[in-house]
Amino acid sequence: MSLKAFKNFSQVVTLKEAHKKDGRNLVASDLSILENATIVFDADEIKWIGKDIDLPSEYSGIASEDFTGKTLLPELVDCHTHLIFGGDRSSEYSMRLNGADYQEIANAGGGILSTMNATNNSTSDELLHLAIERVERIHSFGVGTIEVKSGYGLNFDKEYECSQIIHKLKKHFEGKVQILNTFMAAHAVPKKFKSSNEYLNLEVIPLLKKLAPEGIIDAVDIFHEGGYFDEIDTQQLFDVAKILNIPVKSHADEFADNKGAILAAKNNALSTDHLLMTGDDGIKALAQSSTVATLLPGTGFFLGKPQANAKKFLDSGVKVAIASDYNPGSCHCDNVLLIASLAAPAYQMNISQLWCSITLNAAHALGIMNQGALVPGLAPRFSIFDVDNVDKITYHWGKNLSIN
Amino acid sequence: MSLKAFKNFSQVVTLKEAHKKDGRNLVASDLSILENATIVFDADEIKWIGKDIDLPSEYSGIASEDFTGKTLLPELVDCHTHLIFGGDRSSEYSMRLNGADYQEIANAGGGILSTMNATNNSTSDELLHLAIERVERIHSFGVGTIEVKSGYGLNFDKEYECSQIIHKLKKHFEGKVQILNTFMAAHAVPKKFKSSNEYLNLEVIPLLKKLAPEGIIDAVDIFHEGGYFDEIDTQQLFDVAKILNIPVKSHADEFADNKGAILAAKNNALSTDHLLMTGDDGIKALAQSSTVATLLPGTGFFLGKPQANAKKFLDSGVKVAIASDYNPGSCHCDNVLLIASLAAPAYQMNISQLWCSITLNAAHALGIMNQGALVPGLAPRFSIFDVDNVDKITYHWGKNLSIN
Repeated sequence: MSLKAFKNFSQVVTLKEAHKKDGRNLVASDLSILENATIVFDADEIKWIGKDIDLPSEYSGIASEDFTGKTLLPELVDCHTHLIFGGDRSSEYSMRLNGADYQEIANAGGGILSTMNATNNSTSDELLHLAIERVERIHSFGVGTIEVKSGYGLNFDKEYECSQIIHKLKKHFEGKVQILNTFMAAHAVPKKFKSSNEYLNLEVIPLLKKLAPEGIIDAVDIFHEGGYFDEIDTQQLFDVAKILNIPVKSHADEFADNKGAILAAKNNALSTDHLLMTGDDGIKALAQSSTVATLLPGTGFFLGKPQANAKKFLDSGVKVAIASDYNPGSCHCDNVLLIASLAAPAYQMNISQLWCSITLNAAHALGIMNQGALVPGLAPRFSIFDVDNVDKITYHWGKNLSIN
Repeated sequence: MSLKAFKNFSQVVTLKEAHKKDGRNLVASDLSILENATIVFDADEIKWIGKDIDLPSEYSGIASEDFTGKTLLPELVDCHTHLIFGGDRSSEYSMRLNGADYQEIANAGGGILSTMNATNNSTSDELLHLAIERVERIHSFGVGTIEVKSGYGLNFDKEYECSQIIHKLKKHFEGKVQILNTFMAAHAVPKKFKSSNEYLNLEVIPLLKKLAPEGIIDAVDIFHEGGYFDEIDTQQLFDVAKILNIPVKSHADEFADNKGAILAAKNNALSTDHLLMTGDDGIKALAQSSTVATLLPGTGFFLGKPQANAKKFLDSGVKVAIASDYNPGSCHCDNVLLIASLAAPAYQMNISQLWCSITLNAAHALGIMNQGALVPGLAPRFSIFDVDNVDKITYHWGKNLSIN
């Protein structure tokens, strides 16, 4: 692609200062807004960004499009989804409202086992078709990069298939939506295994070793919680991933403070996610690391449960991202912008922290360091909204203002 | 309109039992769901509702439409909106996130005064046009009855105009969306008056007396809070409304327990709204009255503030409704279904209480007693969703599944 200019944006939220600060300790002005601004880019990078009137003469003749009345932001990223699944668990929303607990839902055929069965009973084509529809919908809200986890096959063959489906999804959307393929066979422990470590050693690790040479896996994730995978399991999987040169992440400290955030930070995980129960030591460890704390407030909304103490993470200098956690059980919501703008007031985030959490820091949570801000040299990945002012996007919550 | 049958619904949520219980003390099964069901109705009332196979032979030849795969519910009602306003207050969302308090927002030109000015600077046609767009959008989510309050003119002439605009809105949507016209000149006290009572006596009451004979006002509302209108003001306005034979409602106990719920119940108000601080005595008074407690959880989401103690109201046998509170300042969200389905888990509502809060009880909050359930004899007002099961509507939160 040759050079192109998008001109006359009413506002451009560059996040230039946030980028300089590595997405930490943000103050409101770190949005770094330009008004009446132009961006010049080619296929690989942003070449220039600034006020319309300051456009260097060397760019005055290039192909351009007019975006009067629109607002440009760094690309929205959803850095935590579980969107490869069959079936649905709609009845659980009602059951939960009616007072059913986890066990009652499981007894009624609900819970993750129900999704495991529905996924295993779906063909690869069916799962791919569903995933394509889901990605298209997410993209319609202005999200251009989406992390997709495997983890509802929960056996060697189906997990292999799920990772392949995510790879097909990536190819399908190439040039339009950037898909990240996260291997998460360690999502739960199938009943037939005596222990989590047995499943890990008999299926998860052998499968990871089989997939790694194919070069399709972008990260490895694990559910590090009591009753799922413990610290020993998690460290073992991280060690294997390290040898295979694949970055790691974890679901941690959601139900109890298992020191999962600390383990993730120690292993230079890209991110550790949920973190409702993380103690001060975990927050400190994250602040001193490059590991992003990915919070998932939609899950709290959907389940009527408490929320992570976001303010403590933010005030401690942790890089905080927000993601949808889109999945059939605990958060059936595919709109990360809606979730973040709803959560921000409860989280006491400032406006820079809010936007950073679903752009710059969410990209970092996926190991993508060359996007998330609109500055020369970074990748030309951005989202455009049909409003003349960034304030209007979250003000109109529940209304899709993306021009995608 | 002659008789018509809508057939083959996958599910029909009749709320028959909820209707019998007057919307109080609901248990989950009060949804009263029929599967594979048909509704027969004419322009005025529901004639029959039941399983497809039980359709009486007298209705077998009438005009019918097929709704296979769809779900039928009593009509969604938004019983509390302030959608007649000019301008927008989008910057306040960001300012609040950035830590600005009420006074700083006011100093920056925000707050209700900003909307008052923008409304006064808009022509009647402009305000009507904006209101039509807003009602169309609300209707697109499946909402068929909408209460609209005046209250941003805040002077005799503009408030008169706002009430006329709502009346034009009602005429515009006649036969499609049912609009209720609530007079709320007592929304705030303009600065030029020495006291709330002075404004009430010099402008609010004279205007109400002027409008009443026109027969266009459906209810009178007042902001009964410290710094706005006190108990004496509220009782005085209620007394005038009583003489004029217009039902009353109030905004009460939002910032402090002013015993506003008790006053509303004593005056047989249709509803009293907000109620974050209502004490046990207020809840008891509501339980013993016909006054609906209308909760506005979207305001809590939007402002990052606490929520009403819904469970206490519900457990005490109060009729609870949920509404959007759609307004430019404290809750710029026009989707009452999204708000209610997000709030229900936090409120610990069961599924019958959830649906009742935006159908049956919301209709009662407007004094409309002949809708809100799908039983013969009630008005044929219903909402249809493109899902085969009611559970899927709230499960897919953020997705508009209405067929409107």
